[in-house]
Amino acid sequence: MTALHTPATLNLVPFVSVDHMMKLVLHLGVERVLADLAGYIADDFRRWPEFDKTPRIAAHSPDGVIELMPAADRRAYGFKYVNGHPKNTASGRQTVTAFGMLADVATGYPVLLTEMTILTALRTAAMSALAARHLAPEGAATMAIIGNGAQSEFQALAFRALLGIDRLRLWDTDPAATAKFRRNLDGAGFTITTCRSAEAAVEGAEIITTVTADKRRATILSDNMVGAGVHLNAVGGDCPGKTELAAGILTRADIFVEYAPQTRIEGEIQQLAPDHPVTEFWQVLTGDAPGRRAADAVTLFDSVGFAIEDFSALRYIRDRVAETPFAQDLDLLADPDDPRDLYGMVMRAG
Amino acid sequence: MTALHTPATLNLVPFVSVDHMMKLVLHLGVERVLADLAGYIADDFRRWPEFDKTPRIAAHSPDGVIELMPAADRRAYGFKYVNGHPKNTASGRQTVTAFGMLADVATGYPVLLTEMTILTALRTAAMSALAARHLAPEGAATMAIIGNGAQSEFQALAFRALLGIDRLRLWDTDPAATAKFRRNLDGAGFTITTCRSAEAAVEGAEIITTVTADKRRATILSDNMVGAGVHLNAVGGDCPGKTELAAGILTRADIFVEYAPQTRIEGEIQQLAPDHPVTEFWQVLTGDAPGRRAADAVTLFDSVGFAIEDFSALRYIRDRVAETPFAQDLDLLADPDDPRDLYGMVMRAG
Repeated sequence: MTALHTPATLNLVPFVSVDHMMKLVLHLGVERVLADLAGYIADDFRRWPEFDKTPRIAAHSPDGVIELMPAADRRAYGFKYVNGHPKNTASGRQTVTAFGMLADVATGYPVLLTEMTILTALRTAAMSALAARHLAPEGAATMAIIGNGAQSEFQALAFRALLGIDRLRLWDTDPAATAKFRRNLDGAGFTITTCRSAEAAVEGAEIITTVTADKRRATILSDNMVGAGVHLNAVGGDCPGKTELAAGILTRADIFVEYAPQTRIEGEIQQLAPDHPVTEFWQVLTGDAPGRRAADAVTLFDSVGFAIEDFSALRYIRDRVAETPFAQDLDLLADPDDPRDLYGMVMRAG
Repeated sequence: MTALHTPATLNLVPFVSVDHMMKLVLHLGVERVLADLAGYIADDFRRWPEFDKTPRIAAHSPDGVIELMPAADRRAYGFKYVNGHPKNTASGRQTVTAFGMLADVATGYPVLLTEMTILTALRTAAMSALAARHLAPEGAATMAIIGNGAQSEFQALAFRALLGIDRLRLWDTDPAATAKFRRNLDGAGFTITTCRSAEAAVEGAEIITTVTADKRRATILSDNMVGAGVHLNAVGGDCPGKTELAAGILTRADIFVEYAPQTRIEGEIQQLAPDHPVTEFWQVLTGDAPGRRAADAVTLFDSVGFAIEDFSALRYIRDRVAETPFAQDLDLLADPDDPRDLYGMVMRAG
């Protein structure tokens, strides 16, 4: 196989298409990718203070939102373009699509352009499992997954790759979603129980993942459904007005977030006072803050997705795709022989 | 020729490479492109209040800056990625490179990805000439161009396309830059005079364009060099600490800017008090503010480049490329048959 990824000249930028991303993930193996991504995220979170952090830049419209999520350290700059348009499914489009770019800070030159719809699903699951590895009760073996949509299989695989979770209890308002999940992971080695309600799904689960698509203040988990010693992985609530957990759960839980200024706007904790104590998860990784403090504590990872996770994912793809043919070169950067002769370059193209 | 620009399926996004951009410009004719771009910019500036305006989002590093410049109206969303790295020429790279994207606000789906290094040069010149058409003294026929680098030929052609300027007086600290300009526009119908100093270049010129690359507080034009009845087109000063004009000129001039909050940071007027009166140029186009008030006035267009100009340029390329084969389809957007079955799509790619 020819390695297409190494640009022959400075004007070319490697591009990973959707098709190439799928082939790259299959080539490496999805659980390896999830574990590797968790490693890249952990490496970046441990040096959190080095990052230039910006809350996402959002353009809202009646139909949805378009966001740019930049993040940079001293060596690399990345950004993700991502939209969220709930009505898109009516026209056969995706609710969320994304692409992103990584650039060299020293030159400003892009070094990677890639699809990020699939990559975001992978990094979200890797982030959840990474947090759970530090927050979930020891010996956890069973996870409830409430909401069996596009993110759910990735969550299951990430939790097995990082925590060894192999018993799953599923629930979704639409049985077809659960059936799809079971079909996709049939024969993958999980013990899967389909439940008749969210209440039934959480029975006996040490970890509860909520990953529903409801775009409003929903109560996927009510206060009485969450007992002592449980880790909550709340993935679905990720924008103003969209939450999944009863406020009573939040006041009982030790809450961990990615980047507090963003999570207070977008996460479950938008239901709480703006000064409610939360821990930024990177501090657990650096040892600056405790993770799980007691076997009977309720821990909550209030996940909304932060730009540094995308940065980590972009770094990972840049590193991995270099060993494969799963990229094509894009003629993206004008490269006149004499930098002052842009006009001459255009004219000579004739 | 096959029109490659119309994606067959929803996952594909038309991409205009550097090579395709050059061929598109040559196909349409550079002066037509400049005049068309001025028209698109004027259309967008006339509806200025409709735009979601954000100052550019900059990531600074010791070697340069990387910026995202978004702009949106109710129908379309655009952004440009652009870097500025003065030391790049030492490694054979461009100081500035850019690419951009246009998306449909209703769905969040990208509709165009394109190189923007060449396109930015074109839109900057179109913007300058559009401003001058409303601000320069009537009957202007001669333009001094101080700084004969990458932007200079585009400026000359835009001013001819929009104002009929065909006499040029050139000066650059490096004679090779001026020689390159003359070579590129030899036989293009201009009467060109190479001058031995900036002072000599401005003699008899009704319009003075400064477009140098000096990244510091320079005085390309001193106060005594600018007489009554002149229009100044100051293009080179475009970031904090980078200016071209003596402050004395500014206090005599009627100053027009793109977007005052940005220009006060980046433009010539960073030398003035933050409340010094300036006019946003869009108000001249809508008739809300006067342009040139008297034959002997000194007018200054303090150009720094604003995201709406890139938005206009993206709209133009989207419209024009649709009639040509100068685009290729990128497989950028994941498009599973069932939006909830992203995982299944990845697995089936095997």
